[in-house]
Amino acid sequence: AQIALERGYEERREYDARYRMLLASTSDAFLFVSASDGRIRDLNAPAANLLGGARDELTGAPVAQEFKDRRRGEFVENLVSLALSDVSSELAVQTRRSRRDVLITPTVFRAAGERLILCRLTVEAGRHQVNDRLT
Amino acid sequence: AQIALERGYEERREYDARYRMLLASTSDAFLFVSASDGRIRDLNAPAANLLGGARDELTGAPVAQEFKDRRRGEFVENLVSLALSDVSSELAVQTRRSRRDVLITPTVFRAAGERLILCRLTVEAGRHQVNDRLT
Repeated sequence: AQIALERGYEERREYDARYRMLLASTSDAFLFVSASDGRIRDLNAPAANLLGGARDELTGAPVAQEFKDRRRGEFVENLVSLALSDVSSELAVQTRRSRRDVLITPTVFRAAGERLILCRLTVEAGRHQVNDRLT
Repeated sequence: AQIALERGYEERREYDARYRMLLASTSDAFLFVSASDGRIRDLNAPAANLLGGARDELTGAPVAQEFKDRRRGEFVENLVSLALSDVSSELAVQTRRSRRDVLITPTVFRAAGERLILCRLTVEAGRHQVNDRLT
């Protein structure tokens, strides 16, 4: 069992390492959000920059409070239903701290029994205060 | 030990799931290459598109053969030394199948005792056949 345990640990470390390198190397802004409590589980530097905060300060924070006029439960529900809808769609929001118009493209998946929402943030080019029609 | 094993397995699955979602969601083209045998361990759709092949056909293929005039051992050595150099730098190459000029930004890391090279590929804007001076 000791060998199996160590192998499990090594395997975990392998995927952990790949995940971390990928998150650190991508130029896209990514947030991982827990679907159960709506908190940011992880994010990369481009996402922290866009939101206008520090990475360690944003980790664990409720994602809804980082966007203007978004209520916690409702916001997470919107992201999940958008992710599960047939047409791939985006949510137009404004960041609370940096007041930037961004589009969120959400994807929902299950990891170790928990539902996570992967959110890709892109800056809206040449649009101002466009309200999405889905909320 | 059973509980610990299961927890290890769950953790591996969690990182595995995060890793896969991230690799599938990023708009950047990424390749994971083994530093020991120079073969492509994993890649995403944008990378397969750039290289001009199918994802499952490219998985396991020697990375050097996908670029023009690149020899296997030497190419991997170049990527590793570039990744470990102080200045962040890129390697200018041309893809063999699609004949596109791309820049490779390599990062080296260790995962489960093996050295992997994460390569981000970007299309060179407005450059033609520029040879890097590092090879």
